[in-house]
Amino acid sequence: MVKSDIEIAQSTDMFPIGDIAQKLGIEDNALEHYGKYKAKVDYSALHNHAGKNGKLILVTAINPTPAGEGKTTTSVGLGDALQKIGKKTAIALREPSLGPVFGIKGGAAGGGYAQVIPMEDINLHFTGDIHAIGAANNLVAAMIDNHIYQGNELNIDPRRVTWRRAMDMNDRQLRSIVSGIGAQTNGMPREDGFDITVASEIMAVLCLSSSMAEMKDKLRNCLIGYTFDNEPVKLGELQAEGAVSALLKDALKPNLVQTLEHTPVFIHGGPFANIAHGCNSMLATKMALAHADYVVTEAGFGADLGAEKFIDIKCRLGNIKPDAVVIVATIRALKMHGGVKKTDLDQENTQALKKGLPNLLKHIENIQETFSLPAVVAINTFPGDTQNELDVLREAIEETGSKVVQSDVWAKGGEGGVELAEEVVRMTEEESDLSYAYELSDPIEEKVEKIVQSVYGGKGTEWSKKAKTMAKRLEKMGYGDLPICMAKTQYSLSDTATALGRPTDFNVNIRDLTVSAGAGFIVVLTGNIMRMPGLPKVPSAVHVDVDDNGKISGLF
Amino acid sequence: MVKSDIEIAQSTDMFPIGDIAQKLGIEDNALEHYGKYKAKVDYSALHNHAGKNGKLILVTAINPTPAGEGKTTTSVGLGDALQKIGKKTAIALREPSLGPVFGIKGGAAGGGYAQVIPMEDINLHFTGDIHAIGAANNLVAAMIDNHIYQGNELNIDPRRVTWRRAMDMNDRQLRSIVSGIGAQTNGMPREDGFDITVASEIMAVLCLSSSMAEMKDKLRNCLIGYTFDNEPVKLGELQAEGAVSALLKDALKPNLVQTLEHTPVFIHGGPFANIAHGCNSMLATKMALAHADYVVTEAGFGADLGAEKFIDIKCRLGNIKPDAVVIVATIRALKMHGGVKKTDLDQENTQALKKGLPNLLKHIENIQETFSLPAVVAINTFPGDTQNELDVLREAIEETGSKVVQSDVWAKGGEGGVELAEEVVRMTEEESDLSYAYELSDPIEEKVEKIVQSVYGGKGTEWSKKAKTMAKRLEKMGYGDLPICMAKTQYSLSDTATALGRPTDFNVNIRDLTVSAGAGFIVVLTGNIMRMPGLPKVPSAVHVDVDDNGKISGLF
Repeated sequence: MVKSDIEIAQSTDMFPIGDIAQKLGIEDNALEHYGKYKAKVDYSALHNHAGKNGKLILVTAINPTPAGEGKTTTSVGLGDALQKIGKKTAIALREPSLGPVFGIKGGAAGGGYAQVIPMEDINLHFTGDIHAIGAANNLVAAMIDNHIYQGNELNIDPRRVTWRRAMDMNDRQLRSIVSGIGAQTNGMPREDGFDITVASEIMAVLCLSSSMAEMKDKLRNCLIGYTFDNEPVKLGELQAEGAVSALLKDALKPNLVQTLEHTPVFIHGGPFANIAHGCNSMLATKMALAHADYVVTEAGFGADLGAEKFIDIKCRLGNIKPDAVVIVATIRALKMHGGVKKTDLDQENTQALKKGLPNLLKHIENIQETFSLPAVVAINTFPGDTQNELDVLREAIEETGSKVVQSDVWAKGGEGGVELAEEVVRMTEEESDLSYAYELSDPIEEKVEKIVQSVYGGKGTEWSKKAKTMAKRLEKMGYGDLPICMAKTQYSLSDTATALGRPTDFNVNIRDLTVSAGAGFIVVLTGNIMRMPGLPKVPSAVHVDVDDNGKISGLF
Repeated sequence: MVKSDIEIAQSTDMFPIGDIAQKLGIEDNALEHYGKYKAKVDYSALHNHAGKNGKLILVTAINPTPAGEGKTTTSVGLGDALQKIGKKTAIALREPSLGPVFGIKGGAAGGGYAQVIPMEDINLHFTGDIHAIGAANNLVAAMIDNHIYQGNELNIDPRRVTWRRAMDMNDRQLRSIVSGIGAQTNGMPREDGFDITVASEIMAVLCLSSSMAEMKDKLRNCLIGYTFDNEPVKLGELQAEGAVSALLKDALKPNLVQTLEHTPVFIHGGPFANIAHGCNSMLATKMALAHADYVVTEAGFGADLGAEKFIDIKCRLGNIKPDAVVIVATIRALKMHGGVKKTDLDQENTQALKKGLPNLLKHIENIQETFSLPAVVAINTFPGDTQNELDVLREAIEETGSKVVQSDVWAKGGEGGVELAEEVVRMTEEESDLSYAYELSDPIEEKVEKIVQSVYGGKGTEWSKKAKTMAKRLEKMGYGDLPICMAKTQYSLSDTATALGRPTDFNVNIRDLTVSAGAGFIVVLTGNIMRMPGLPKVPSAVHVDVDDNGKISGLF
């Protein structure tokens, strides 16, 4: 019988977290233990190693399909494989949100024999970061409404408070509410709503800050709404940034855990990959780079969204760059991009594979040409993959100058990723000179146009009147030089979720723009973005249990 | 210059928490460290000491006034004093809520030289317990609304969902809301609202459970609403108790910290003292009793609410009993009970003191006669107290057979509480046989009547029609044998907040009844109870800050 992820995770002996830190040369006095197998690493561990810099490997993927790609599993397995071949390695990953754990989603800590542990803790409250972010977000919300209630000196228009409340739960009932009702003493009635905490701007701010001072500065600049005179109101005007930063003082510190093979893993920060930039915290990445020779990290969704934002937003701001990029794909997912139904994926189908391959080829092209970085394709192996299919794939990829490597880390752990690790090491020895999809000094419309044309392969953009007006307004407000954060469907290179493979000749519809003035990017909305998920008919919560000794079961 | 609480706290060298645990004979493998100075203690530490039982000292107080009594400060100082005179001591206290910290409230970890540290952590997220309780509460809420949305098999009436959402924030805007609006996919529109997390039934359940199994059982029994046919619906019918328990697996474990003088302190659980029973968790109390010879604990509000519930609810359920009771008072507060304004408290006023004294005398009478326990009065000393006033006080108290001891722990730490500690030790050597204010088998109305007559000193009760009907209904539903949890103003022995001193000849108005079927008590509402506080015009949040190294300032 195949063991479940949680069974594999719970049957592994963990090393004390101090031993894991020691692998990276992090001294015990920089650790704040959370139980025996989790620790926060103090800011000091970064400052003490400011000069050092390892090689950064970005793991990204084709546009996701219901067949699954295994990006996190590949990231974890690659890290284990690098450790196996003798490299001083760290992995840097996002922190999972609690809400989806009780919905339909599997764990967010890898799978099979390529997992991060203790997986139950990581998937539940972990070290409390996301709760702290929620509290910080909701303190600001309470201070806004209290300000309005207590006389409204700042003249905030209750109809235009843009700062929403947050909860780390899949709760559709809270998407849209009317708050402040029932009595004069209950506040000012207004339309309001909750986002899932990881979609909050506070999460994005925390993830893009390299220090407490930088975070406080970004917080001060967050827009919270507009006055009756249409002037923007900032968080700093409420004098909230000190208390918010105090609430986040521990959340800002990266968390250290381990893989099943005891490779050090920083799991820290998990901003949305549509309305935010979708990768782990800047501090975790920098902390990893300062202590390891090889750092494996990943970006949310496919390379069109994840890698683009990783490079154009995070790398640019943090002055870092990937030395190699791994694009994860599966034969099954590529066949879905070629039109095969999920139920038919077990049959060999080289025709469909050929038809789906251009999706992968476009992502390779983006990494190689738009961003000028070396790329390798990691095929996450499934038992049903045939030699014919693999041959078709290999031939197509090798024409691009990149290599294909099979990865079997789900079944074999690091051992299944040694070939990939060796190719990655080789790639990082090449010289590369990162380029961006656009310049910050480009006008907003031009920045978006460049992303659509060069990264998505579209013809151009079509702007709603609202979006056009907003672009002008944001430039006038002084936000014209910010990078762009595209909020687009992850399923297609275009803005049409069903346009699989490599669509061409399409325009992307720009519906609206908002600014995350604290985090420091302009969000470009191409469709309706869900910021608060719901639960399915039978939530996975009904299967979760814990025994008298605190051992959890049924998590996945 | 007098140092602020946070300055005193931050200038003290803490001992590693393992050393504190060792004082109680708790082995390191039962500890889960949260940084260097906080730890959770595993359930195993209790099971391994099941036979042992220390002496339990309950600290309670007169009805609170704006002059302040210093109940927590006295509890902490008494613990330090017991340690100073060579007793193996532990303190068990409630966990503070985050919300009020950003409003007007001072810290909830004692004051002056009788504090628990690290006070910033304790007052902010601490070990995440309250966030976990909020998440558990809100998972149930999301599952209820999802159930209704997904077809409503249980036939739940959306107008009669009694389970509210929770947030650990002072946010009046969320007291009353309409949720589920805006689109068919956003749920079912209904009236809804948030309570502050510590007011949730989950908090009460966690605090009254001695084991994971007991907690799961109580959770299963929580009422979440009624069907269209007026039948009660329980949490267990949603199959939510497993996931909720999993979310609470760490929150259920008591937290260990230390005083400024390194006395071990369990800080765990903080249910409301009106709609719940208002004392720290059962597990923390039992864990302390199993490891220390003397355990100091406190109950919320004055003795009419706090001590009564401690005895009639917690002691009865947990099969524990106090060996001595300390009643905290100040001369200033007693003068307020005698009619003096806060601004005039610095002047000697023996007349007002005599007029206010009956409040204290009634509480002594309750402890001695209603509950058959030995009591000592601890006068928390203020610089303005005069010898004349102290003489008046001493004379009046000594007529009751109890002693008065001056306590100066705010200024002097444990040294200032040695006399109190010695009296407490003496008292615990007396035999005492706890009695309760009512029998569980009494009809609901009679139980309430007995509390009002014997504990509050009132004539009787006046029931609204609604409350009378509800009492009948609860008895029919099988809840007739539960203990009573009175929700009454804390400022007066009566249900009129302005009736200070010792009011007589009053009736208590019983407005409504609700059942906390999971926690296991009937809540008797005598007025409007605020379950979600608001922020003041200038919230203390605007003074809080944190520096680049994570050091917090301005907290109090």
